[in-house]
Amino acid sequence: MIETVNAVRKKRPLIHHITNSVVMNFTANGLLAFGASPIMAKDINEVSEMTSLADGLLINIGTLLTTERKSMLMAGKTANQKGIPLVFDPVGITTTQLRQNFSEEFLENVETTVIKGNAGEMAYLAGIPWESKGVDSVDDDLTALEEIAKVVAQKYQTIAVVTGEHDVIASQSNTFINTVNVPELTLVTGSGCLLGSLIAAGLATNQDSFQATKDIIQFYTHAAHYALTQNKPSGPGSFSPYLIDALGMNFDE
Amino acid sequence: MIETVNAVRKKRPLIHHITNSVVMNFTANGLLAFGASPIMAKDINEVSEMTSLADGLLINIGTLLTTERKSMLMAGKTANQKGIPLVFDPVGITTTQLRQNFSEEFLENVETTVIKGNAGEMAYLAGIPWESKGVDSVDDDLTALEEIAKVVAQKYQTIAVVTGEHDVIASQSNTFINTVNVPELTLVTGSGCLLGSLIAAGLATNQDSFQATKDIIQFYTHAAHYALTQNKPSGPGSFSPYLIDALGMNFDE
Amino acid sequence: MIETVNAVRKKRPLIHHITNSVVMNFTANGLLAFGASPIMAKDINEVSEMTSLADGLLINIGTLLTTERKSMLMAGKTANQKGIPLVFDPVGITTTQLRQNFSEEFLENVETTVIKGNAGEMAYLAGIPWESKGVDSVDDDLTALEEIAKVVAQKYQTIAVVTGEHDVIASQSNTFINTVNVPELTLVTGSGCLLGSLIAAGLATNQDSFQATKDIIQFYTHAAHYALTQNKPSGPGSFSPYLIDALGMNFDE
Repeated sequence: MIETVNAVRKKRPLIHHITNSVVMNFTANGLLAFGASPIMAKDINEVSEMTSLADGLLINIGTLLTTERKSMLMAGKTANQKGIPLVFDPVGITTTQLRQNFSEEFLENVETTVIKGNAGEMAYLAGIPWESKGVDSVDDDLTALEEIAKVVAQKYQTIAVVTGEHDVIASQSNTFINTVNVPELTLVTGSGCLLGSLIAAGLATNQDSFQATKDIIQFYTHAAHYALTQNKPSGPGSFSPYLIDALGMNFDE
Repeated sequence: MIETVNAVRKKRPLIHHITNSVVMNFTANGLLAFGASPIMAKDINEVSEMTSLADGLLINIGTLLTTERKSMLMAGKTANQKGIPLVFDPVGITTTQLRQNFSEEFLENVETTVIKGNAGEMAYLAGIPWESKGVDSVDDDLTALEEIAKVVAQKYQTIAVVTGEHDVIASQSNTFINTVNVPELTLVTGSGCLLGSLIAAGLATNQDSFQATKDIIQFYTHAAHYALTQNKPSGPGSFSPYLIDALGMNFDE
Repeated sequence: MIETVNAVRKKRPLIHHITNSVVMNFTANGLLAFGASPIMAKDINEVSEMTSLADGLLINIGTLLTTERKSMLMAGKTANQKGIPLVFDPVGITTTQLRQNFSEEFLENVETTVIKGNAGEMAYLAGIPWESKGVDSVDDDLTALEEIAKVVAQKYQTIAVVTGEHDVIASQSNTFINTVNVPELTLVTGSGCLLGSLIAAGLATNQDSFQATKDIIQFYTHAAHYALTQNKPSGPGSFSPYLIDALGMNFDE
């Protein structure tokens, strides 16, 4: 993973975000600590200029507003025209028509480099029924998750990342499973959203996209594990700043 | 207080928030640490679906936008139809016509389970003149605060919570005063807003609403006191993560 | 610097903010810890009332929306009418037409007490070409930065603050250079935005405006230096809460 991390820190890519309003501050701080630079702008009258300045784009629909749909589409199209990587995070897509309609429109009009989401969100995109309960074993589960990731990768011609106890990454030709599980991350709001942002930074280097995605995910769970074991936080409140600290560290030396 | 806290952690209720943009991240992290789950969505085109999925609703007008009024009303009405608890926090109602007009409209159209605010805000709703200065003693003060809470409880057929040095809780038949005072909370932005969210989680269990409100307020000040005495933070910046940590702990064992 | 800091803590001025959505929580907590009080409201239907209640106003265009332009102008005009200080922070003005057009409109219609920005932003306002790379030495650099600050001060009849490795402050008759450099601040999102808010609090006392600006900047870098040396944070994540703690301390005793 060290090559991608080093490449990010050398290039310090500028990542434009149109992301949810709950996680903006946390995402910006995590990305800065890691070694890249965030911009966050939503207005239809500047979103194209902003994306043109950037090395990568992250679109996250966690607090989608109808008024932001056009901005997200315009930023996405600009990213495609410019040839910069694009990460799409369909937060909460299973919950409302608004998110489903927008995601359909977005994915019809914009090419993504990576789509990431949890099992339910990615299963929705794959068109595969999914119940998070009732799976007999982790092995069964992994087979189902790989299937979901492969279908999304094929259907949307993208790298698909299914996050969870194990993270499954699939391209059209490749699959990887990250087995480092840090359940404490689920208690930090925006830990998944931040991962999307870090992946965008990794993609903005000249590494292979599949390798970069894999490297960033491994680095992230490694950093989270380090923050927990090294700093022994008394809960998710103090874990969060230590996680950000760890994102600025080196672990391969 | 242990029953309500345990009931929240067993059920992990989903609380939908339409809250102010200053405190979204802090509220989400506090609620997650406590053992419940936040959703935060404001768009008129999804707010009703989101509320339908939730076990409770929090409405907080701290950064009210005119464009959000309809969403708050629709979420409130959906909560009433579905029979889930609703906490209303009229932040800054004394300061502007917008907040006063909206609160009047909201309270005419929506039934609340709990209304919480500081003395000035609750006195405004009660129609009782209030000057925070010039009260001779805490005893006089408490009598006035109880009167305010009782009037709000009667007028709006709700549980009323007046937060401050002492927190006064009143229903139409019951009154309770929480005497644990943690003044350091006033230096953490959104500490009052987070309390509203935790109360919504408590109400979403099958405890009696008055008891649940009382339990959550006692737990919150207890957790804040623990974070201060146990972690000895050097100021409000480091108090805040320890407070979130403490919200995940057990104190009755 | 002690007089301005003490004056803020004695008066506890209320500072109204229309600021970017990435930094609202951090700014509010930093200002509270310092000893002043934040309000943050953006709606056109209440912004004038809010500014009328305040002792100072901060306008920051870091996530400017077209729909917020009128609110910022109205708040600015209200501040001028009421005679309260106004700090303007043209975040990202070099990047988009929207920010340039709005800043031009704002500065034509509203008088500022302080304009603050980094070298690129302030050079843009001064109409002086600026490349952050290619400067041979810090001395050359400082001469150029002083020129930029003086031109902005003259052109907009304001105090100009150019932040960076050294902070340059200029009024029409006075110049000061703050040589305390805390590079770790650049890894904390919103550390510059928070400085604008603290300056607004300093200006809201009855100190001379140039002296107050100088005092606040010195206090801020001093507090940041203290947080780093005293608490030895392992990175920007844990630096941030300690910085907020330090803003509540006294350093002149």
